[in-house]
Amino acid sequence: MARKKSDAIPEWIKARLTAARAEMAKSDLPAYLLTRHMDTFYMTGFTGEDSAVIVMPRAVHLVSDSRFDEAIDAEVPWVKKHLRKGLLVDEIANVCRKLKLERIAIQADDVSVQMLTALRKSAKPTRTVTAPPIVNRLRMAKDPTELKTLCKAITVAQDAFLATRKSIRVGQTEEEVAARLEYEMRKRGSTCAAFGTMVAVGANASHPHAHAGKRKITRGCAILFDWGATVGFYRSDLTRCLFMGRIPSRIREIYKVVLDAQLAAIEAIRPGARMCDVDGVARKLITRAGYGKQFGHGLGHGLGLDVHEAPSLSWRSNDALEPGSVVTVEPGIYLPGVGGVRIEDDVLVTSSGHRILSDLTKDLRSAVL
Amino acid sequence: MARKKSDAIPEWIKARLTAARAEMAKSDLPAYLLTRHMDTFYMTGFTGEDSAVIVMPRAVHLVSDSRFDEAIDAEVPWVKKHLRKGLLVDEIANVCRKLKLERIAIQADDVSVQMLTALRKSAKPTRTVTAPPIVNRLRMAKDPTELKTLCKAITVAQDAFLATRKSIRVGQTEEEVAARLEYEMRKRGSTCAAFGTMVAVGANASHPHAHAGKRKITRGCAILFDWGATVGFYRSDLTRCLFMGRIPSRIREIYKVVLDAQLAAIEAIRPGARMCDVDGVARKLITRAGYGKQFGHGLGHGLGLDVHEAPSLSWRSNDALEPGSVVTVEPGIYLPGVGGVRIEDDVLVTSSGHRILSDLTKDLRSAVL
Repeated sequence: MARKKSDAIPEWIKARLTAARAEMAKSDLPAYLLTRHMDTFYMTGFTGEDSAVIVMPRAVHLVSDSRFDEAIDAEVPWVKKHLRKGLLVDEIANVCRKLKLERIAIQADDVSVQMLTALRKSAKPTRTVTAPPIVNRLRMAKDPTELKTLCKAITVAQDAFLATRKSIRVGQTEEEVAARLEYEMRKRGSTCAAFGTMVAVGANASHPHAHAGKRKITRGCAILFDWGATVGFYRSDLTRCLFMGRIPSRIREIYKVVLDAQLAAIEAIRPGARMCDVDGVARKLITRAGYGKQFGHGLGHGLGLDVHEAPSLSWRSNDALEPGSVVTVEPGIYLPGVGGVRIEDDVLVTSSGHRILSDLTKDLRSAVL
Repeated sequence: MARKKSDAIPEWIKARLTAARAEMAKSDLPAYLLTRHMDTFYMTGFTGEDSAVIVMPRAVHLVSDSRFDEAIDAEVPWVKKHLRKGLLVDEIANVCRKLKLERIAIQADDVSVQMLTALRKSAKPTRTVTAPPIVNRLRMAKDPTELKTLCKAITVAQDAFLATRKSIRVGQTEEEVAARLEYEMRKRGSTCAAFGTMVAVGANASHPHAHAGKRKITRGCAILFDWGATVGFYRSDLTRCLFMGRIPSRIREIYKVVLDAQLAAIEAIRPGARMCDVDGVARKLITRAGYGKQFGHGLGHGLGLDVHEAPSLSWRSNDALEPGSVVTVEPGIYLPGVGGVRIEDDVLVTSSGHRILSDLTKDLRSAVL
């Protein structure tokens, strides 16, 4: 009997499984365990949480529970389904024994010490071995399906920002503005904010990770926004500054430095460029302007199913950029008691250079409300 | 010189540290490592993420980075501050060596295999030992400060639901209604939805973890809401059903069963009651009505800084309820192709029984729009 169309594995999932299996073969791994929600989603397209995927050379096993019974049949009819009654780790162990696996591989940053201990005990005689981070690596190179969704998450965040910008008034609190921004994203298809939306007024912006609170927008103040949308599990991450009526002179000075640093760093993005070198391009310009100590964090990070994922675009990494990665580029200068400026875009590493995926203006005059 | 008032450790933090240190002394642990955001917040009150706390008998060390430098001085001036330049795990190791720690204890469900491996290597000669889950246990008993915040999170969720309810119209999509509900929570002080807000129309409610999507509200449909707010990091979790004009007869029948089961289970909540027995009260009533197989998940879970935390109110657990725990009570019946009913409240275990913290009506007639 011909297979129903809906039972077929989508092409992009097939490609991911093929790539994972090729890596498994290199390390002679007969089975590979994934337990993080975004990893199980990436490898199968199954949207449910609290589940585990075991990739094998000819089959994919999904360990989940009755809450997701219908969803599994609808989304991934091609997996071997195991619905647990007890703990997730116990059902994974059951499957290992049933399949008479000699070994099962884990990603060391995926599995907790507790889970490993339980698995070692209850999966016997199956042995648990720590394996190379195959899925972390695969997820670094975005395929066209992923890029399309990620770009949607960027568009939603940008359109919501433009809509929110029109509604900003003196006297509103940071959290009121953040609420509006998240609502505008939600209305456009974001399932949740990509992370805690940051709206920081005046001196509050000197905290690189400020929370939106009760501070009010005043005439002449600067407002720093760091926000992102989530669409189909893919996340965007952007930072822009706006100004109520006028630009404080000290902020004007550092804005120019940060913008120059950001543009120069983006120019340096290409396959083969080392993370520390791209970070260094921005850091050198900021240091030369006298603000090196006020730029304490790395230049950026990988972006995709997690808001922080590989690669780390930082002075700490000697790794080279690879085509398909999407990274944030977000230098900043923070002056305690005064305020801060950070400018952030999302950038794709292409085969020959880069493509900036976000396109909100960074022109300082346009930032005045 | 007298210590500044702001430098003093708040009383509720002192109490948590004292309790943790007493447990550490029992197991002869000289230092206890915490790395989960909600654990580091719980033990110190520091709001920043990506940080680690080391509790020692006479000091608390906080390992963080420059992004949080100002926030640490403002929020927890009494900790010993360590700002990392490199990886978090490397700075934890540095601190271990500097303090000449013989051993450092970890919670096995907190630390990944990767972090443990790195710590064992770079913290030498400090040894890493797996310790009892001291903080997980402490977090089960909510203190008055926590209860006040948790009740605020419940009030915000309830008020937002009542406001949203007034705005529901035929033709709106699930995600439009979810967007409105989250906006109403945000306006009332919620920093983010406690989890992915569920708004499920008609048959979609037969998935216990349905996502809000493009399905439209129609005349005569049932709508299941599962939602919560986050206030000061504490989360609420509620489920209610609404009906557009009339109640489908099959849904009316199962609603009564679920409500009876929920009320009976809540009555059974008291210190010393076993989780499996409380779960069993609801399960027996649902099974007797012929729907045992359609109630596949546990009765509820602990609620606090995480939306799912200890204890697990499930048939799998023989543990007894303890005073101070807040648990959800959320039986449900799910009929594929037809729909589902779940009713959920948040309940505090008191010294003599229980107190229901949420108070939205469950009267079926009031649920008709």
